[in-house]
Order: sequence, then structure tokens, then C-alpha cells
Amino acid sequence: MITIASPEHAQHRAPHEFLDGRLIPPYESPERAEIILAAVERAGLGPIVRPRAFGDAPLHAVHAPDFLGYLEHAYGRWVAAGGDPAAVLPSTLAVRWMDRRCLHPLVAPGYYSFDLSAPIVAGTYRAARASADIALTGAALLLEGEPLAFALCRPPGHNAGSDMYGGYCYLNNAAIAAEQLVRSGAARVAILDIDFHHGNGTQQIFYGRDDVLFVSIHADPAREYPYFGGYADERGTGAGTGFNLNLPLEAGVDDARYLAVLDQALAAIQAFGPRFLVLSAGFDTFGGDPIGDFALAAAAYPAIGRRIAALGLPTLVVQEGGYAVAALGENAASLLRGMAAEA
Amino acid sequence: MITIASPEHAQHRAPHEFLDGRLIPPYESPERAEIILAAVERAGLGPIVRPRAFGDAPLHAVHAPDFLGYLEHAYGRWVAAGGDPAAVLPSTLAVRWMDRRCLHPLVAPGYYSFDLSAPIVAGTYRAARASADIALTGAALLLEGEPLAFALCRPPGHNAGSDMYGGYCYLNNAAIAAEQLVRSGAARVAILDIDFHHGNGTQQIFYGRDDVLFVSIHADPAREYPYFGGYADERGTGAGTGFNLNLPLEAGVDDARYLAVLDQALAAIQAFGPRFLVLSAGFDTFGGDPIGDFALAAAAYPAIGRRIAALGLPTLVVQEGGYAVAALGENAASLLRGMAAEA
Ligand SMILES: [Zn+2]
Ligand SMILES: [Zn+2]
Repeated sequence: MITIASPEHAQHRAPHEFLDGRLIPPYESPERAEIILAAVERAGLGPIVRPRAFGDAPLHAVHAPDFLGYLEHAYGRWVAAGGDPAAVLPSTLAVRWMDRRCLHPLVAPGYYSFDLSAPIVAGTYRAARASADIALTGAALLLEGEPLAFALCRPPGHNAGSDMYGGYCYLNNAAIAAEQLVRSGAARVAILDIDFHHGNGTQQIFYGRDDVLFVSIHADPAREYPYFGGYADERGTGAGTGFNLNLPLEAGVDDARYLAVLDQALAAIQAFGPRFLVLSAGFDTFGGDPIGDFALAAAAYPAIGRRIAALGLPTLVVQEGGYAVAALGENAASLLRGMAAEA
Repeated sequence: MITIASPEHAQHRAPHEFLDGRLIPPYESPERAEIILAAVERAGLGPIVRPRAFGDAPLHAVHAPDFLGYLEHAYGRWVAAGGDPAAVLPSTLAVRWMDRRCLHPLVAPGYYSFDLSAPIVAGTYRAARASADIALTGAALLLEGEPLAFALCRPPGHNAGSDMYGGYCYLNNAAIAAEQLVRSGAARVAILDIDFHHGNGTQQIFYGRDDVLFVSIHADPAREYPYFGGYADERGTGAGTGFNLNLPLEAGVDDARYLAVLDQALAAIQAFGPRFLVLSAGFDTFGGDPIGDFALAAAAYPAIGRRIAALGLPTLVVQEGGYAVAALGENAASLLRGMAAEA
């Protein structure tokens, strides 16, 4: 397998996030990517390469042009208009019938995002672009015949939709890579999201499509972020009906329960018959995670990896969440070791 | 004229609001109501009475039952779930395609509100109920033959819609009073909103109705709050088409410009032929207001009052915004003096 990583992620460092009425230190930190990279190096899982540069076209294939323009210029315009230079965060948001677009530099954050956990700082767009290039490089490696690639993306991506960001995510790395695989000739691509949180952005991007299957195993949104989407009855729309599978789970999920649900997800993927698999891999399913409530043990990750690899599909693993920093590197390396052993 | 006021408003005192990336002291304070009350007393504008109690029915006539249930219990449930006891504020919001309802106590604020300027504390619902009773008492006085009543409402109401709160507003006092007038037999009621900000909640509540005309003079939402609604092309829907008139204005509006636009608004009200007028009166149009960018002088307010009173309609004045605290009392008394002189 090949790992793709870049130091550019460090350009994005949030000063805080706003949660449950308080400004708190951010759970999503640059240390996360460094720790995973060190663990993958230590595990000797194959070469680690830098991303290639793919330009704007693959981003435009997934995200709206006004959204991309907003992200690129948000910080500079915010500061010029008198916003707190610490970070861009919305204070009025386009909820339901408050739906007219407003591009005022202090207000556009409330049109293009849905929460206060994704601050934008000066280097955020640069880091997010590099993160997307990492995923795209992984897609290119699969197209070149590599059976397994690990895109060490940061910031993560699965909560970012075509026209909205949030949940520590700005550009949807997994969706951008999947779309690139489709446009490069793959008739069908499956995305499996095993982050603790629902991949609401990925779902939204492919919700009307029958060529990209989205399967997500996650905490029930009635209890956990992102709350306003990710329910079991969201099955797709139009041609995409039946090509979106949400498997929301209760608190306290242990290894046995998780692996049983994973088997359900893998059966759906197998039935779909994709040419490639994109795996949105979050490790906030771990028992020790500070913002998750599942109870997976470290031993779950190699087992999850082995089962996914048993599909026999060329697979791009895209890094998403995971905030138990002390265990994060080892859990990621374990998943990859399980996949590589089987591949 | 009769003024209706209650000390219950003091039960609502926000510790802060979140604006432009920062937690800041709230502009909307209990002192506002005290200052207006003192100025009205000094001006000798007639009796000042306490509100009657109207119960739940008139609130249900305007607001959704789940929304009212949320408001009543939000603070207790928030604190019990671990939210900051200082105040309820949302951190994930139901923007666009993130639209599934979620009643989790830490998350429902993001379903039922659209900004971070309306914190809920222990006494907020009690104060909001009293504020609605103040407006309802004013409506009752009009029905009993009083030509002019001043509902000294706090918290204000015009940003609260049928199912969402925000902008310092929780229950829409003006809409609740207008609906009560309609249900008491008035075929047509007009609402004129002269607060600096668009009355997005009032607009939403009556948007499909032809028996309540809503006319609002306000700062262009492309530049000022509430940003995601209040544009000139919002004219109503269905039977309500043509019964919503937004007059958004540029920065720096002076007395002459304002009075000319007011004449336009009054002509539309006259053409509608209402039985009653409800005036949502904000004083953040004043040149010294810390969050407005109009340039009205103190002398504008008696002139505005005289012109509105010249309609010859029984009128309920409902207090909305105004944050230049030193001038607020005198500006409110001036408007009322102008109206009473003409009435
Ligand atoms: Zn996650
Ligand atoms: Zn206002």
C-alpha cells in the first residue's frame, strides 16, 4: 500500500470551536495528522508520498463554484470587515425559511456552514486544497493499479456538502476522490463511511445518483452530531433511491455488534458491484474517544480492516475523524495493517 | 393613550451574545424597558397599566405547538444535559438540506433558532409570555374602543416566526396581537414595522395571508441583519401575494428620506383599508444606535408619529428594538407624543 501525506495540513489550526454554549479548545488539531503519520511510518506499511497537484477541476466536479469562491476568500474578507481575526465563525444562519443567499463577508459563513465547529483561519483553504489533492492522488494510484492507498487527509471531509461546510470539514475529500474515479471510467464506485458521525456531506453530494453507493455506519443522529440528517429512512432520491444506506447505531456499540453491522454494510456493497471502494475512515468509534460514545476496543480495527479488504476491491482509505489522540495513530495503523494483510 | 408594561421582562437577562466570531455583552438589556417606561411616565402620556393574562390560546394561534413546548422547557433541559448554565445558544443549526427535526436538548436550539443573538436563560419564557400578554392587552384595549395603546414589550418579537426565534425575539408580540384582532372580528389588520431590522418573523407568519398586510421599512438585508430574508422581491405567496411589502433602504438614511418612504408605506396601508394598525416600533433607526446605520435625528420620531396617526386608525404600538440607551426613552416618548397629538 501507499500512503499520501503533506505538511500543508498544519496551515489549518482552529483557535477554538463553539459547543453547548461555550467556546472550547478544538478537538480537531494538527497533532492528529502528525500522530497518524508517525504510526504509519513505524508500522512499515509501504511508501509515504507527497500529493500531486490536481487544480480546480476535480473540486468543481463536487462543490458549487460560489461555495469554493467563498472558502478561498472567506478569511481575508472577514477580517477586512471587522470579524474576529482569531477565526471565521457564523452567528446568523440560513435556517429553513431564512434561505435567501447573502454574501456579506461577516454573514456568508452562516449561509455556507451549518455549525460552529469549523472555524476558518488564514491557512484553512490552502490546507483543505492539499487535503483534497491527497485524496485525488490516492484515486490516481488506484487508477494506476495500486490495490490499496491511504490518503492521510486533514482537514477531514465527510461533513462537507456541495455547498456547505461544517464538522471540521471544508472540502469533501472522499467525494472528490470518488467522483474522480467515476469520471475516469469506473461505472460504479462505493463509499463506505465508518467514522463515528454520519457523513452528511457525502450523502448530500451523491443523494440523487445511482452510480455512487453511499453506506454509512454511525451514531444515531437523534443522539449525536450531525443531528439534522443521517437517519435510516434517508435512502436517496430520484435515480439515487436505494443507493444511500444509513445504519445508525445506539450508544455503547462493542466490537461484536459493530462487526455484525459492518457485515451488513459490506453485503450491500458487494451486491452493488462497484469497481472501486472509497473508505471514509474515522476512529472516533474508539471507546476512549472524547466526543464519541461507542465502545470499540483497539482490536476492532484490524478486524474491520480485514473484513473490508475481503471484498477484494481496489480501496482508497480516506482519513476522517478520531480525537482520542493517544490511541489515534495505532488505531489507524491497525486498520491499515488489517487491510494490507488481506489485500 | 394607554401604556401597558410589566416588571416581568427583567426575568430575561442575556449574559452575552455571539457576533462576528466573539462572545460580547448583549445589546438587548433590561435597562432598555426601564428607560422607556421612565420616559413615558415623565411625558405624561396617559395611564400605565399592567397586562391581563391571556393564557396559551393566542400564542398557539401564531406559533407551532412544538416550538412553544421547546421554548418553555429549553433552559431546564439544556442545563440537565450539560449545556452551559449561562445561557442556551445553538452550535449546530438546521441549514438548508440539514433539515430533519432533532429535539436533543443540546441541539433543539439549532432547530428552533437561526442565530446566536437570542440566548435563553431561566426566566426567558416567563418574560416572553408577559411580553405577549402586554401586546394582547393592547389589542383588547383597541377592541374596547381605545384609539391608541403602547405595548411596552420586552423581549421584542418581530424576528420570531411561527417555529423559529432569533434576533433578541422569542414570541412575536405584534403578530400575536394582530392575529387576536383578526380573530375578534376585524376583517383586515395592517402591521407596519419601522424597526431598523426587517421583521422576518412577522413576514413569515402572515406570508400566505390576505387579511393581514405586512409593510416593513428597514435596512437592506444584503447589508444588515437578518440577511437571509427581507428583500424587496418578497411579496407574499398564494392568497398572500401582494400583501407583503418590503422597503429595504441604504445606509445613512436621514429624516427627509425616511419620511418619504414612510409616506409610501402609509399609502399602501390606506389602500388596504384595515380596521386596525399594529405598529412594530424600533428606535434602532436613530443616528446614534450602536447596531444601526441610519441617521435619523431625534426630531424624526414625533414626525413619524404624526404621519402614522394621520391614517386615523386605532393603533397598537408594539415596542421592538433600539439600542442607543441614552436616547431610547426620549425617542419612544417622542413617537408616542406625535401619535397622541394627531389622534
Ligand atoms: Zn467523526
Ligand atoms: Zn432592530
